[in-house]
Amino acid sequence: MSDLAESSCEACRVDAPRLSAEELQNLLPQIPEWQVIEKDDVPQLQRQFTFRNFVDAMSFANKVAELAEAEDHHPAILVEWGKTTVTWWTHKIKGLHRNDVIMAARTDTL
Amino acid sequence: MSDLAESSCEACRVDAPRLSAEELQNLLPQIPEWQVIEKDDVPQLQRQFTFRNFVDAMSFANKVAELAEAEDHHPAILVEWGKTTVTWWTHKIKGLHRNDVIMAARTDTL
Repeated sequence: MSDLAESSCEACRVDAPRLSAEELQNLLPQIPEWQVIEKDDVPQLQRQFTFRNFVDAMSFANKVAELAEAEDHHPAILVEWGKTTVTWWTHKIKGLHRNDVIMAARTDTL
Repeated sequence: MSDLAESSCEACRVDAPRLSAEELQNLLPQIPEWQVIEKDDVPQLQRQFTFRNFVDAMSFANKVAELAEAEDHHPAILVEWGKTTVTWWTHKIKGLHRNDVIMAARTDTL
């Protein structure tokens, strides 16, 4: 488990700092399976997990949802047959906060 | 409950017939909340359901997943804070089968 995965999210405010490009580049090696995508000009962290069937994909989605509730920080979770795509970003700041990298690392441990 | 919602899916084969434009137009009034979208040139039925929070959105997703398993016909389910987007289409025929309209109608009854 990486240091990031052992971290908790701090409460996030509208004026919380977005990660700088340099900070993000320094953190990404700890979550090498995650891609930085842009959606509606908002950078987001996304990873697709593959499974044997729909039930396993849904079961993983529920684990991610439990983690999200525990930290009160919520991703988008797309469930399809044999795959679950998890996307983290911080709605309030329309971008990536350190919390999102922490949640990505914790998702990897599920 | 509409007639469609009381129907079961028939087994779907690669050579099963896609709905014609006319058949689709005749069925859509029974599922008025659903949009026909195109993704990668594949027509799909999509509806967004709204909820008070993430837990309720996830709970609904699990009900849809149970329905999908029962019929062995699986949608894409996107869960976000306060909303669940369900998308039905038939992978094998790269389009819409009568089964998809049935599943949309049954999703409405959950």
